[in-house]
Amino acid sequence: MNEITMLMNADELILSALREDISSEDVTTNAVMHGYQKGEVDLICKQDGILAGIEVFKRVFTLLDKDTEFDIGVHDGEEIKNSQKLGTVTGDIRVLLSGERTALNYLQRMCGIATYTNSIVKLLEGTKTKLLDTRKTTPNMRIFEKYAVKAGGGSNHRYNLSDGILLKDNHIGAAGSVKNAVKLAKEYAPFVRKIEVETESLDMVREAVEAGADIIMLDNMTHDMMREAIALIDGRAETECSGNVTKENIKALTDLGVDYISSGALTHSAPILDLSLKNLHAI
Amino acid sequence: MNEITMLMNADELILSALREDISSEDVTTNAVMHGYQKGEVDLICKQDGILAGIEVFKRVFTLLDKDTEFDIGVHDGEEIKNSQKLGTVTGDIRVLLSGERTALNYLQRMCGIATYTNSIVKLLEGTKTKLLDTRKTTPNMRIFEKYAVKAGGGSNHRYNLSDGILLKDNHIGAAGSVKNAVKLAKEYAPFVRKIEVETESLDMVREAVEAGADIIMLDNMTHDMMREAIALIDGRAETECSGNVTKENIKALTDLGVDYISSGALTHSAPILDLSLKNLHAI
Amino acid sequence: MNEITMLMNADELILSALREDISSEDVTTNAVMHGYQKGEVDLICKQDGILAGIEVFKRVFTLLDKDTEFDIGVHDGEEIKNSQKLGTVTGDIRVLLSGERTALNYLQRMCGIATYTNSIVKLLEGTKTKLLDTRKTTPNMRIFEKYAVKAGGGSNHRYNLSDGILLKDNHIGAAGSVKNAVKLAKEYAPFVRKIEVETESLDMVREAVEAGADIIMLDNMTHDMMREAIALIDGRAETECSGNVTKENIKALTDLGVDYISSGALTHSAPILDLSLKNLHAI
Amino acid sequence: MNEITMLMNADELILSALREDISSEDVTTNAVMHGYQKGEVDLICKQDGILAGIEVFKRVFTLLDKDTEFDIGVHDGEEIKNSQKLGTVTGDIRVLLSGERTALNYLQRMCGIATYTNSIVKLLEGTKTKLLDTRKTTPNMRIFEKYAVKAGGGSNHRYNLSDGILLKDNHIGAAGSVKNAVKLAKEYAPFVRKIEVETESLDMVREAVEAGADIIMLDNMTHDMMREAIALIDGRAETECSGNVTKENIKALTDLGVDYISSGALTHSAPILDLSLKNLHAI
Amino acid sequence: MNEITMLMNADELILSALREDISSEDVTTNAVMHGYQKGEVDLICKQDGILAGIEVFKRVFTLLDKDTEFDIGVHDGEEIKNSQKLGTVTGDIRVLLSGERTALNYLQRMCGIATYTNSIVKLLEGTKTKLLDTRKTTPNMRIFEKYAVKAGGGSNHRYNLSDGILLKDNHIGAAGSVKNAVKLAKEYAPFVRKIEVETESLDMVREAVEAGADIIMLDNMTHDMMREAIALIDGRAETECSGNVTKENIKALTDLGVDYISSGALTHSAPILDLSLKNLHAI
Amino acid sequence: MNEITMLMNADELILSALREDISSEDVTTNAVMHGYQKGEVDLICKQDGILAGIEVFKRVFTLLDKDTEFDIGVHDGEEIKNSQKLGTVTGDIRVLLSGERTALNYLQRMCGIATYTNSIVKLLEGTKTKLLDTRKTTPNMRIFEKYAVKAGGGSNHRYNLSDGILLKDNHIGAAGSVKNAVKLAKEYAPFVRKIEVETESLDMVREAVEAGADIIMLDNMTHDMMREAIALIDGRAETECSGNVTKENIKALTDLGVDYISSGALTHSAPILDLSLKNLHAI
Repeated sequence: MNEITMLMNADELILSALREDISSEDVTTNAVMHGYQKGEVDLICKQDGILAGIEVFKRVFTLLDKDTEFDIGVHDGEEIKNSQKLGTVTGDIRVLLSGERTALNYLQRMCGIATYTNSIVKLLEGTKTKLLDTRKTTPNMRIFEKYAVKAGGGSNHRYNLSDGILLKDNHIGAAGSVKNAVKLAKEYAPFVRKIEVETESLDMVREAVEAGADIIMLDNMTHDMMREAIALIDGRAETECSGNVTKENIKALTDLGVDYISSGALTHSAPILDLSLKNLHAI
Repeated sequence: MNEITMLMNADELILSALREDISSEDVTTNAVMHGYQKGEVDLICKQDGILAGIEVFKRVFTLLDKDTEFDIGVHDGEEIKNSQKLGTVTGDIRVLLSGERTALNYLQRMCGIATYTNSIVKLLEGTKTKLLDTRKTTPNMRIFEKYAVKAGGGSNHRYNLSDGILLKDNHIGAAGSVKNAVKLAKEYAPFVRKIEVETESLDMVREAVEAGADIIMLDNMTHDMMREAIALIDGRAETECSGNVTKENIKALTDLGVDYISSGALTHSAPILDLSLKNLHAI
Repeated sequence: MNEITMLMNADELILSALREDISSEDVTTNAVMHGYQKGEVDLICKQDGILAGIEVFKRVFTLLDKDTEFDIGVHDGEEIKNSQKLGTVTGDIRVLLSGERTALNYLQRMCGIATYTNSIVKLLEGTKTKLLDTRKTTPNMRIFEKYAVKAGGGSNHRYNLSDGILLKDNHIGAAGSVKNAVKLAKEYAPFVRKIEVETESLDMVREAVEAGADIIMLDNMTHDMMREAIALIDGRAETECSGNVTKENIKALTDLGVDYISSGALTHSAPILDLSLKNLHAI
Repeated sequence: MNEITMLMNADELILSALREDISSEDVTTNAVMHGYQKGEVDLICKQDGILAGIEVFKRVFTLLDKDTEFDIGVHDGEEIKNSQKLGTVTGDIRVLLSGERTALNYLQRMCGIATYTNSIVKLLEGTKTKLLDTRKTTPNMRIFEKYAVKAGGGSNHRYNLSDGILLKDNHIGAAGSVKNAVKLAKEYAPFVRKIEVETESLDMVREAVEAGADIIMLDNMTHDMMREAIALIDGRAETECSGNVTKENIKALTDLGVDYISSGALTHSAPILDLSLKNLHAI
Repeated sequence: MNEITMLMNADELILSALREDISSEDVTTNAVMHGYQKGEVDLICKQDGILAGIEVFKRVFTLLDKDTEFDIGVHDGEEIKNSQKLGTVTGDIRVLLSGERTALNYLQRMCGIATYTNSIVKLLEGTKTKLLDTRKTTPNMRIFEKYAVKAGGGSNHRYNLSDGILLKDNHIGAAGSVKNAVKLAKEYAPFVRKIEVETESLDMVREAVEAGADIIMLDNMTHDMMREAIALIDGRAETECSGNVTKENIKALTDLGVDYISSGALTHSAPILDLSLKNLHAI
Repeated sequence: MNEITMLMNADELILSALREDISSEDVTTNAVMHGYQKGEVDLICKQDGILAGIEVFKRVFTLLDKDTEFDIGVHDGEEIKNSQKLGTVTGDIRVLLSGERTALNYLQRMCGIATYTNSIVKLLEGTKTKLLDTRKTTPNMRIFEKYAVKAGGGSNHRYNLSDGILLKDNHIGAAGSVKNAVKLAKEYAPFVRKIEVETESLDMVREAVEAGADIIMLDNMTHDMMREAIALIDGRAETECSGNVTKENIKALTDLGVDYISSGALTHSAPILDLSLKNLHAI
């Protein structure tokens, strides 16, 4: 996550998370430590996985004290191993104690998503199919979770309702037809947008292609129906396969030649990756 | 979640989540729907579980349009079943479309936590042991996640660093001894706080009891060590068992007679409960 | 501007503008009016033009007092005439006085942009060319100004840096080549984005088409060069003509058959349209 | 604009403007540039005018990266010329690219206002009459626009509704008479305020003088009527001439000996001054 | 405090105060009351004094629940007596309990200030001298405290550093002389500002009058010196007497014929007025 | 006040206070000082008392300019004397002038509370009784005022409604009995909370002890009744004596052997301690 994104869009959320945990003060720490004491702590990985969010982890501490220092040799997107010492954090022990939980809460979730994403991406290796996330992210975590998907080797679908057009059945119903919905979208939306249409039948697929849709989502279709749809589209639009995609059933989709597979599970069901801060000591 | 909590502490977060999804406008909906159109949609449960967060779900829509109406007959803490129609949401179709994802993102996570919590609470039935959450919550989701734990039948540990004293090894190290750490905490903290001490050995347990700790956390101890510790404490302090507690290993802890078992997994590893909005139609 | 956009993205800005004008209280009004007094005022147009922003105008007053009422018969996008009474605002006279300036400051600018945009759109009638705005908007006014462009019959270019890809010379330089820049963009950006490349020579145009750019911007080219570029592109990408486009020189561009012409002047140089509130009286 | 004003009152607005342009991240830049790369760019003036807002321009970049450096030799209020290189900005190329548009959007508007103001101030040279702005500023731009008026040689009227008393016809109507309105204002408002009365007839002018008004605004009066009013006031109050004052008609007012002329056009109709960033290159 | 001031400038502060007291939820109330229960409580005055802030008191409750109702027959500025029942608050008992402390914290302080101010204003009755407050207000309480001073019969000095000119010795030092300081202030400040000069000697008084100061503050002067200063000024400027003015010594100042006496004690030393909510009961 | 508390919970309030005083700019200072001028000023104590808030005082200036420097040799909790020079502040004179009032407004109130608290704490010396504050703090000042109580030698009662359980008569009424109220609180609240019950009769005291209350508040009881209550409790719960406790009547309570005495007057009636900035001069 680069510095500008951090400053513009992550800092406010991180500060809000810190204030959620420190609504007046860290009573325990302040009770026993009355002044600055320099200390050091190790960041340890406790499961195999993919790193994501190390800059967010650091930011939690530097927002509490800009002089906190880090000696961490791994980068987002890299593999990390159980028992691996990822590096050290050095600074005011009070900062290390007060920031620990929030820093790990971010890092564990982001690594969890990257790790889970990566495990599916590997199943798609050798195919042309790319793995996409969805908008099924945790509230106020999207900027972190979408980033983690990329760190894990996945790709991002639209960021939110404002930057992507996805015409669903209700939009189509309101417009009267697929054709009219696509026409209205082209007229209304910034012209840099691609138009995606969600389809549930071959008729809708046909209509969407003819209306000039850029992307066609095959939603909750059977395997055979998807195959037929992709044949019908025949390269005239990009194709996305969607609907309860999991690690278990994704293999079956790889022979379809679909351009994209999207999975909500990447962000809503990835278990965390266990990491911890250990061996805190004064220096 | 009652109305005051919602207004004071949840609304800002919900609005931030809505703005995360609508950074300028819902382009798709605005392209095809140019005015108010009343509609109705069903809230359907797609897995067995425990409901939590229904007021948060509603709030997402009423923050978008205060005239949105709900006919939902189930309450937080109640069991819900796969395929059950939980009720309907009625209002401006544009609001139903724009709010759907954010409302479900909250509800699915909260129900997931309540359901997972409840499954563990059931394993503790018949014992005196209560199940506790931790501070391992998703950033900016604590108010929702801690509430969901209660809806699932669990109890809450401290809310954050400001409202609970938990003396860990580093605090004790800074104070010089368990005894001194407890003394400093009693002097410094608001007098309404109980003092909890995290212990890793029987010596620490003994010291903590003698220092007048109100609660003693047995952290990552073996089963036998915990049994000894509880005997040693002998009712002079409350006891909490902590450390990688999962659904799988919790049963083994039930014969210990410990007062509390805390589990980070309740909030960091509960899978979501699948719910969806279906059958949107104009009325 | 619809109600959801208003609530999510305009209200905060409007409130900030009101507080800019009322940093403690409206001293004059409060000095002479010590309580509620119902009143009515007419909204009068003082120049011919296109209406834009009437909901924003209303919102200023309803944010000050939700019971303010409006009887206004014209809609955004419609022509309005010098001396035309557009309607009336009814409510607490103190609200009418305190909100007047902020409401008009928004409305006059938005109508000014719609009017200026429309005057250029008319010059493009009968051609396939659409008129686009740019990111040269007034800080903290983008949501209002881009909306006004549409009310005037124009189209929107990307909303901001987050929702559109536009590869300029420096991006291309960093990537090493147009080809590589397009490749990196496709890999990195959400897949729903079109890729636009800014070109300054025919070589760059050729490279961009071959790299698979969706849109090619012809930046500050001569008329002849643009003609050649469009011939070279030959429908393989959309085309956008950019660079100091004004009402005076746009006519010369209409024979090019370019898809889009973008003009920063729409938002940075449109003069306001004069409107005022008149005949305030108690009722 | 001094550092305290910037910190207390401009920064929040500038950050809001930056977030308007970067709602999640600068996708294009992040796609092609994956790390820090030092660069330099020139700030070029493309029209003759008066500089205003150079500290605001700088602030946009330093808010994105505090290590951005500037070598700019001109100061607000000074004349700048077409083709003049005003200086250079040095820093992370990603910052230069992401901040460029917002920085120029501020600078161009502020220079535009200073330039337009200055052109009118010159018409008043040799007279005792000072040029004033009004509250007809762009929403959320007042602190910048009022500053630009001063940079252009103009003076500021009241900042907002909270720091100035201006009794208009409706206030006078509510108070019953000019005399009573002035009395109520003196009683209610902080005693450091001058009392200004807007007048539309000689009778009102007479009443206002006798009531002890400090400033009398002659609103939309004919030339002869203003002359008579000023004679009648005879130095007993300051005088302000207001109402559709433009560069074209202001010369006619200079023989009146009025103290102040106020013009909304300074902030609502000044065209921008064209400036740009050129020759960005890595160093 | 009128509705617009409340909405624009008080609500944010009141909400912040409520959140200071309810950082997650009202644990006690939520533990024992699980739903809406209508109730009523009396507002009782427990000391003689002047009422100020009754709308702020109400607002605390309506911000928690807009349906809270009030039957309160007294108004700001009126005398209230020990044991007097001022009225009743009716609404959700949970709201009455959660809002009680914050509502009283505001009301008691505001009534305290109004009462103390009024006791001094009475000492000035029969003289031309008006009583002024200062900027020695409690942080984040100025809008409430300055209002309370007026409710008690006092007048307001400048609101803050932005809306009043007060040239102190350091400003004068920086300008080189009183004369130059006044000249610079007239040139720089919005022309609606009066210019006040703080003086400590008769020489400074003379200089200030001659420089055209509108108001001259006699700071920490002896009684005789003030008398001489006022004679010297002789009506050419307004006069303000300042410096450790208390209820005890103010009487001595009343024969001076000074226009204004300012006292920081009004806002920094007024004791609270005791009020309480009693007899809460379900209805 | 430590650095983390300052960053997380005080800065926002201090900035809000600064903006309350500088809503657009410091007009006077900016009129006469057009650039940086280094200066120095002395912080002088003008009454005997206890220092509290020196870090908050400093923070006001460093928030205006991070380069402001301090040479102050006294610490919070220490005695300070009339006429004592506490130290110096060095920095941009404009910062010293613009921040002076806000810095002193905080410091004077905090020192006033510490001083008043300390004077009562001294009356309790030699007893086991500790002095507590209450929630009767000034809105948006709690973090500062509770800290000042501790600096003065007092202890803190609960911070707010979210971090302490205090069952009052209405809570007990809603629960049906003291016993049930305590039971509900234990079930609902985070288990780290002590349960306090407010009692008004010996029967309630008995009920509360038997229900397992951790703390029993004796509210507005007579001296004899409190003695009886404490005998009845007999060490089975902590005891708190509450109700119009003042410096005058507290001595009478010292023979009771009560654990805690709480006093709202510490925060709502402490007069400020007079401090000022003197001898500002350029260096």
